[in-house]
Amino acid sequence: MASPITPPRGMRDFLPADKARREHALGVIRKSFAAHGFDEIETPVVEDVARLHSGLGGDNEKLAFSVLKRGLDADDLQAAMDSGDLLSLTDLGLRFDLTVPLARFYATHRAELPPVFRSIQIAPVWRAERPQKGRYRQFVQCDIDIIGEAGQLAEVELITATAAALDALGLENCTIRINDRRILNGLLEFCGFAEARWPQVLISIDKLDKIGAEGVVKELSADGADSAAVLGGILEQLEPHIAEGGVAMTVEAITGILPDGIDTDAIAALESLAHALDALPSGVSLRFDPTLVRGMGYYTGTIFEIAHPGSGSSVGGGGRYDGMIGRFLGTDVPACGFSIGFERVVDLIETPEDAGADSVVLVYDQTVPLNRLLAIKAELIASGRRVRLDRRAKNLKAVLDRAEASGFRSFAFVNADTPDAAALELKPLG
Amino acid sequence: MASPITPPRGMRDFLPADKARREHALGVIRKSFAAHGFDEIETPVVEDVARLHSGLGGDNEKLAFSVLKRGLDADDLQAAMDSGDLLSLTDLGLRFDLTVPLARFYATHRAELPPVFRSIQIAPVWRAERPQKGRYRQFVQCDIDIIGEAGQLAEVELITATAAALDALGLENCTIRINDRRILNGLLEFCGFAEARWPQVLISIDKLDKIGAEGVVKELSADGADSAAVLGGILEQLEPHIAEGGVAMTVEAITGILPDGIDTDAIAALESLAHALDALPSGVSLRFDPTLVRGMGYYTGTIFEIAHPGSGSSVGGGGRYDGMIGRFLGTDVPACGFSIGFERVVDLIETPEDAGADSVVLVYDQTVPLNRLLAIKAELIASGRRVRLDRRAKNLKAVLDRAEASGFRSFAFVNADTPDAAALELKPLG
Repeated sequence: MASPITPPRGMRDFLPADKARREHALGVIRKSFAAHGFDEIETPVVEDVARLHSGLGGDNEKLAFSVLKRGLDADDLQAAMDSGDLLSLTDLGLRFDLTVPLARFYATHRAELPPVFRSIQIAPVWRAERPQKGRYRQFVQCDIDIIGEAGQLAEVELITATAAALDALGLENCTIRINDRRILNGLLEFCGFAEARWPQVLISIDKLDKIGAEGVVKELSADGADSAAVLGGILEQLEPHIAEGGVAMTVEAITGILPDGIDTDAIAALESLAHALDALPSGVSLRFDPTLVRGMGYYTGTIFEIAHPGSGSSVGGGGRYDGMIGRFLGTDVPACGFSIGFERVVDLIETPEDAGADSVVLVYDQTVPLNRLLAIKAELIASGRRVRLDRRAKNLKAVLDRAEASGFRSFAFVNADTPDAAALELKPLG
Repeated sequence: MASPITPPRGMRDFLPADKARREHALGVIRKSFAAHGFDEIETPVVEDVARLHSGLGGDNEKLAFSVLKRGLDADDLQAAMDSGDLLSLTDLGLRFDLTVPLARFYATHRAELPPVFRSIQIAPVWRAERPQKGRYRQFVQCDIDIIGEAGQLAEVELITATAAALDALGLENCTIRINDRRILNGLLEFCGFAEARWPQVLISIDKLDKIGAEGVVKELSADGADSAAVLGGILEQLEPHIAEGGVAMTVEAITGILPDGIDTDAIAALESLAHALDALPSGVSLRFDPTLVRGMGYYTGTIFEIAHPGSGSSVGGGGRYDGMIGRFLGTDVPACGFSIGFERVVDLIETPEDAGADSVVLVYDQTVPLNRLLAIKAELIASGRRVRLDRRAKNLKAVLDRAEASGFRSFAFVNADTPDAAALELKPLG
């Protein structure tokens, strides 16, 4: 057996304390989403390889783990060599997000679902990325999506439910930045970028907070200096307004900056969205950021992203993707989704103070008859406690320290004279 | 896109009602296990292919899904063709059980774990079996294991915690059959079977309830009629005692039947185990079955299996596997585990009657201002309710029927005149 023994590269084991913190946070998120009328579903971790590689996953498709077909023989290998098509050796792939499986799920089960379907998916996804700090090859996403609602109610319910989940987790100082792809598209059109270049231009704009307007112009000048200069001028004027104040203020400030011909409907929609969201929890604020991009190509309208001062990158995001479900279904269905990046959020929260309040470690010595020990344990469990047995060792301090580290809050000794649970003397740990 | 669109072969989607029932059952099991002092851990869904195929998984190893290495080229394919070793194309595999990953986990983290480690693993596993009724390619197992406890305390705590979980799920008429591999081994030795044949003989004995003692003799006679006949004689005498009464009674009845030389320690251990387990919940009974085998080769002592009249096959099982952890660690560590077959159990339980008691569907018409609708929804959520919005449609009955089918218990109309939540008239659904 190879040594040292570790989990697969870029993936993690979770020990009891971590696992408990994760399950607590997942429970809080799940409960918030459910209270807001969303219903949890589950799909298999793998999907047919053809569906995963249908172009909806963008760059993530390249990061998919593929499953080798069972029962392959030399002919299959020869065929793959001749065609150069390695995907012919696979029939399934581990999902790289929860959106492609949701689109497939909706296409499979549409007849059984309500006309407006509000889904929760809380589940791991896999990406063969180069492992680095805070980026893993298996990680959990918490997605809510509303399928079948073309109106702004979808955006409002998604943002409200997500804000409630962040609030319930005790996360403060969250900012939800919103924008609309139609505003970005109008901006690029005004600047004179050819539509084929838009994805590339959006990637540059997405880096605005890192490289500044000047950096964006530099990146884009090689392939059309005029358009880049016009864009740069607008971004420079926009920049000071992005980090400031509420949505209405930003809209007002940028009205004079954004060129004519920008989708005024989209701006009006953002204003009305902000109006409908005036009662967000105090720890969550909303900000209109006309330079927000979001990576995926499938967004068609509103887009949003959660920022938190404790995390260098966004802790969640989403948007409207009206065209996507149609790719699986054949007919277009409006859809909008919001995803919490669980791994980033879970690092920002504390274990609740009352965790383990009812837990007891029974430190027993070998002279206690097994039956009596178990009867005492059973009594305590029946009274609502969580009970672990720890054999008394020479180094008692080590036993108690370990019990405390595993989240237990009190302990008691059981010896040959202890008749029952009522005779235990419970003492606090630590 | 291919049509019809379905989940991958042998795998399932879970719609909201099913998912809710599953999450409820998993929560009950998780809580029972935790109350008994077990700690939940998590490992990645994949393990290194060499570790999965180290011989500990028995026949399940052949059913593992393998993950294609990233960045393979023509040379790699050529090498795989030349060597005929398809596993050279893979580096990871989806786990086929939770025991191999636990052994790997323990070897990785031993220094951070208590000397007696009680683990919970509640997670999916994957096997590329031929799909058939009740057998899936992705399914959930609920395992508890105790590592580092050589004494019978391990068996007792595992069986007690599992029985508590079955009881909390409301499952009645469960039977836990117990046996000891040492008794079986002694029996085979007495009958004169060569040790190399034991695995094959055990497979035949495992089918006793289906093919009878006569069938077992028939299967084994071709390769040694004498041993088969001796075994057949013993099995025939044992059969009537297996389905009867408690452990002590069975022990007494079989004492005259089992040949001298059978491990009397093992029989005494079963008796003391039964004695320690005299306070199991009323819906769970214990039975000693000297013909119980359990499939896996790694068991070294006590083995157990849960039977329920509502399921044709066992709904859980486990046993002591003292040699296995050593395969990963290099030093032997005693271990014992019990696994609930979640897919079989979840089919046997009902959704709790109070599910969704606080849920409300707000049937709104389009004239209600978005802000007011959301304020009313927020008021209800703040009062502890689960709230879904459903747009009023011509066919009101269909809207209400669907709400009821999705688990909602009451509804109220919201129209342009509704000022706030206090003005709502809640009516029961159905």
